[in-house]
Amino acid sequence: MIIVMSPESTQSELDAVVSKIRASGLTEHVSRGSERTIVGAIGDERPLNEQSFEQMAGVERAIHIVKPYKLVAREGHPAGSVIDIRGIKLGGKQVQVIAGPCSVETQEQMHLAAAGVHAAGCKMMRGGAFKPRTSPYAFQGLGVQGLEFFQAAAREYNMPIVTELMDVRMLDTFLEHDVDVIQIGARNMQNFDLLKEVGRVNKPVILKRGLSATISEWLMAAEYIAAGGNNNIILCERGIRTFETAYRNVLDVTAIPVLKKETHLPVLVDPSHAGGKAWMVPALARAAVAAGADGLLVEMHPNPCDAWCDADQALTPQELNDLVASLRLIAQAVGREL
Amino acid sequence: MIIVMSPESTQSELDAVVSKIRASGLTEHVSRGSERTIVGAIGDERPLNEQSFEQMAGVERAIHIVKPYKLVAREGHPAGSVIDIRGIKLGGKQVQVIAGPCSVETQEQMHLAAAGVHAAGCKMMRGGAFKPRTSPYAFQGLGVQGLEFFQAAAREYNMPIVTELMDVRMLDTFLEHDVDVIQIGARNMQNFDLLKEVGRVNKPVILKRGLSATISEWLMAAEYIAAGGNNNIILCERGIRTFETAYRNVLDVTAIPVLKKETHLPVLVDPSHAGGKAWMVPALARAAVAAGADGLLVEMHPNPCDAWCDADQALTPQELNDLVASLRLIAQAVGREL
Amino acid sequence: MIIVMSPESTQSELDAVVSKIRASGLTEHVSRGSERTIVGAIGDERPLNEQSFEQMAGVERAIHIVKPYKLVAREGHPAGSVIDIRGIKLGGKQVQVIAGPCSVETQEQMHLAAAGVHAAGCKMMRGGAFKPRTSPYAFQGLGVQGLEFFQAAAREYNMPIVTELMDVRMLDTFLEHDVDVIQIGARNMQNFDLLKEVGRVNKPVILKRGLSATISEWLMAAEYIAAGGNNNIILCERGIRTFETAYRNVLDVTAIPVLKKETHLPVLVDPSHAGGKAWMVPALARAAVAAGADGLLVEMHPNPCDAWCDADQALTPQELNDLVASLRLIAQAVGREL
Amino acid sequence: MIIVMSPESTQSELDAVVSKIRASGLTEHVSRGSERTIVGAIGDERPLNEQSFEQMAGVERAIHIVKPYKLVAREGHPAGSVIDIRGIKLGGKQVQVIAGPCSVETQEQMHLAAAGVHAAGCKMMRGGAFKPRTSPYAFQGLGVQGLEFFQAAAREYNMPIVTELMDVRMLDTFLEHDVDVIQIGARNMQNFDLLKEVGRVNKPVILKRGLSATISEWLMAAEYIAAGGNNNIILCERGIRTFETAYRNVLDVTAIPVLKKETHLPVLVDPSHAGGKAWMVPALARAAVAAGADGLLVEMHPNPCDAWCDADQALTPQELNDLVASLRLIAQAVGREL
Repeated sequence: MIIVMSPESTQSELDAVVSKIRASGLTEHVSRGSERTIVGAIGDERPLNEQSFEQMAGVERAIHIVKPYKLVAREGHPAGSVIDIRGIKLGGKQVQVIAGPCSVETQEQMHLAAAGVHAAGCKMMRGGAFKPRTSPYAFQGLGVQGLEFFQAAAREYNMPIVTELMDVRMLDTFLEHDVDVIQIGARNMQNFDLLKEVGRVNKPVILKRGLSATISEWLMAAEYIAAGGNNNIILCERGIRTFETAYRNVLDVTAIPVLKKETHLPVLVDPSHAGGKAWMVPALARAAVAAGADGLLVEMHPNPCDAWCDADQALTPQELNDLVASLRLIAQAVGREL
Repeated sequence: MIIVMSPESTQSELDAVVSKIRASGLTEHVSRGSERTIVGAIGDERPLNEQSFEQMAGVERAIHIVKPYKLVAREGHPAGSVIDIRGIKLGGKQVQVIAGPCSVETQEQMHLAAAGVHAAGCKMMRGGAFKPRTSPYAFQGLGVQGLEFFQAAAREYNMPIVTELMDVRMLDTFLEHDVDVIQIGARNMQNFDLLKEVGRVNKPVILKRGLSATISEWLMAAEYIAAGGNNNIILCERGIRTFETAYRNVLDVTAIPVLKKETHLPVLVDPSHAGGKAWMVPALARAAVAAGADGLLVEMHPNPCDAWCDADQALTPQELNDLVASLRLIAQAVGREL
Repeated sequence: MIIVMSPESTQSELDAVVSKIRASGLTEHVSRGSERTIVGAIGDERPLNEQSFEQMAGVERAIHIVKPYKLVAREGHPAGSVIDIRGIKLGGKQVQVIAGPCSVETQEQMHLAAAGVHAAGCKMMRGGAFKPRTSPYAFQGLGVQGLEFFQAAAREYNMPIVTELMDVRMLDTFLEHDVDVIQIGARNMQNFDLLKEVGRVNKPVILKRGLSATISEWLMAAEYIAAGGNNNIILCERGIRTFETAYRNVLDVTAIPVLKKETHLPVLVDPSHAGGKAWMVPALARAAVAAGADGLLVEMHPNPCDAWCDADQALTPQELNDLVASLRLIAQAVGREL
Repeated sequence: MIIVMSPESTQSELDAVVSKIRASGLTEHVSRGSERTIVGAIGDERPLNEQSFEQMAGVERAIHIVKPYKLVAREGHPAGSVIDIRGIKLGGKQVQVIAGPCSVETQEQMHLAAAGVHAAGCKMMRGGAFKPRTSPYAFQGLGVQGLEFFQAAAREYNMPIVTELMDVRMLDTFLEHDVDVIQIGARNMQNFDLLKEVGRVNKPVILKRGLSATISEWLMAAEYIAAGGNNNIILCERGIRTFETAYRNVLDVTAIPVLKKETHLPVLVDPSHAGGKAWMVPALARAAVAAGADGLLVEMHPNPCDAWCDADQALTPQELNDLVASLRLIAQAVGREL
């Protein structure tokens, strides 16, 4: 950590900073510039708190030099992680398209959806049984019955399933129903108790980025899961909140190369929630694969007009099929396969 | 709801929209303009979903006319709600300053803090026993022991206590320890399972605004609590996330008059988390009261330099004392008292 | 326009709204719903001002139904515009990569840069002679001499040049120096006097998006140019400002399909300014072409380490060469060529 | 400046950094930590460019320690500047309310407006003759005739006038018409040629904050004016752009104490543009004065319903009168007068 003293700071204020550094088991390095004196704290600075220095008299600013995340950092784990989901690899050469409806509605809908996902060449399926809805009056998901409908449909094609966990109390139920990949939604990215719980199980977890989470906060949320012992973490960019009102969110493609540099975890992109309209999905999906994403989470509904939620962002089975074909060419152009 | 047809839409597409409106139990009102045909859906439009219209062929846009919140809306409840917390009124003429440390650390620290809060003339106390921390390696709060230290200190001055609930599984513990006001933190504003649970108890709830939550999303989160039967809801603005990096968050004072118009719920402001630095607190606190806030949530620590978290945003007991004196004058200038 | 009356509005307030609509030469359509009365204004609503209705007694909200832009709108001009720049087509099947240094520094640097741009297969060149710099103490560009160095270098390869105009008083100088494409920078997107001036000449104009400009504001800025009679307008997305601090700006790829739907103007993307680091450029450039961009504006410097500004975002000539090769594959994957 | 070397950097990369520091006339200070080596550049670091270090091999990050602004910084000018505008002091003990219509419309409107401004106890008047409008089809202001109407009305009460300059070519006209205070609007905050021109004259300048300008960028824009020799600079916060759609902009009150700490320049607030609705103005105006603003820029129109622009944000003369009375109490509560 670097501590910048203010121009009018005194020797005794500097001494106090030095004492505090030493008390934390680090050593100091004082550097007197023409306008400011700067103190470097040498040693493992992670336990140091910028704030506890910034409120000391004579201190202008404290700056962490080392990144706060460790287990999920690329530094120290130069090779990218490949997550194995019942034999399907996420994070390797193959780009994975995980498709399915926003919410599980009926057994028949799920059978049709599973057929469409499989026909398009996708190997995994998504669907929501517990839905986070802005309004308490909106459909909240079928719950446990939804998990059953989902598994019954996906098993016909031997596809692993991805579904969202919102409540810590439902984790055992998810395990009993053999959910293959637990999704933590954007609104729960910093639900730390939930992160701790999924950190204790041995299941792959997709951690969606919070609507206005920085890359650093997101990686620290992943660090919560890793700190619990679960290293099967997959990040998913799903659009960030900005001032723009012409579309729901802004898909942050810059995050893709930045995550690839900062962390060894695989990176998915959800183009459906990002744009919020089915007609935007193909362009965003192509951009994501071109920028280096390891896979996509795409909404598809056998009959979008009748979808019970997020109706206007789901592709039809045919549109999914066409999209996968076009993504295959993009994947090849960047040295991947699909 | 207003449904705007696109210029090239056909009669049969229009007919489909009309049928859908009728199927929802509403009646339509078709208005043909020079460039667009517009359809009004007449009746209770809350169950209608904008998206399910927007994905229909020939539809350009669907616009809700009625606000999505009902129980918390000022419309229908013209008088502002006054919440009674063990005899102390929040939302009435008196502005309430709720002060205390970021986190409960020791019994002695809490005794000193309680003495300072009381000496400054505040009637309620805040403090965190369970702390939401960005890093899994940071101090996570004392937990249940923290609740005990807190109650022991606050009871000496008969001050109701405000403390944050992060995990649904801890709600019974909060009730057993007689927590007077349950705080839902910014990161959990859309933790819907938690909202549903606190909606089932009969305790006042402070609902902090999410870092990038719109007013509408925030009121819908409050609606979750109200829909469960708990009307003792208090909103707390605590700064929003923007592009500015010179301070942690931007205190959104505009939210205060807007909330006063949109909802009957009382509005608190947390100037400590908004700015992130103790020296900003007095200016922000004054602005909040001048703009019409019903109260403040302020961090004070008996010895800020030794605080275990958010050290640089806590006031000293003396600074709190001075601030309350200055706020009294502002309160009077706007026809309130403190 | 739709005018929503508040629930407690009176008949005379409604009458006043109707009178105002008629006074503007439109006709009204009144629709009484269960909770609100809604008035539609039928006719050309562009001259109507939402605000002048919203401040009338009894009015809750006024909503424009028709988009405010007309000349640049795709509606009415279904085919995309192709801009001809000395025989090079922008907006057609071929994706154009326009490359060159951030700023013109020396004649030799420009000769080397032109050679590199040409060798990579690019047909147009960019470079800044007048530089918008945050600091008054930073290098402000070589000015007119820079234009001369630039033209001398680009002409060797018969490449049209793109350079930024900041000051209306320099427009004649630009014309005298045969600048082929005038760039309006992000900071000047709403410098309306500058837009009016470039609207009066017959030169292609690249209009960069303001740092926090909405799509609608951006298209209205383009409308200023079109309203002056100049239809040779090219839009350029260059990243928007958000809360994220890990990179300079967020490249808004969602804007690409949205612009393609809303306007007939060609769309460029500047991946260099968006990310701010050379190592991010390839991923962002690929994403842009995959999402449907008509071209790119890329920074390349013969020797990035010695660049006088934005040193760390320029590619080397070799990196540009490699990037163009990889973009060619992406272009083919989306049915374009390069 | 602090240069952080990456963990895998080599000795020769470190040597190159040291050479570059020495070549800039500074000296280095190398500090080897447990995970990173850090190099301090000692001397006047303002000419150093972070980017030119960040693109060097082996460099992870370069951090400026000294603020980039100098002439406008509070550091070195501990006393706040007081600007004298024809005998009226801005920045001293007295809070100034500058009121008037959004745009100059007719001579009669301006006479009525001036009477209302004066009657409310305000000493200066605002009004726009040249209007920056999002749409080219909207009223663009009366131009020079507007300046004449404005002066004719304001002179009756000997009130200095404030009006916006958009085009460098109009500066002489402004001087000829004795404009007392030149306003630079939010959209032109980084119109550097305009800043340079107003830096050359000896007139007070109000510099509005750009819609998404950081405090640092804003102060650097002010530095452009100061660097030209004009120190009569007044800053004006007018709301920033965020994700919130319930109101036009978010008034950033946190900027007030931060500016007071960072710069010696006086700080105004424009509550009218911030919220965009007249009913929000009183709460925002009170918040601004309570937070320490030196004055306000408020829209008032003799007949808001007939205003030619921004109709719904103007106060009536009576509302202005009431607001000033209430602000007087707030000013006293914070030790100011009005």
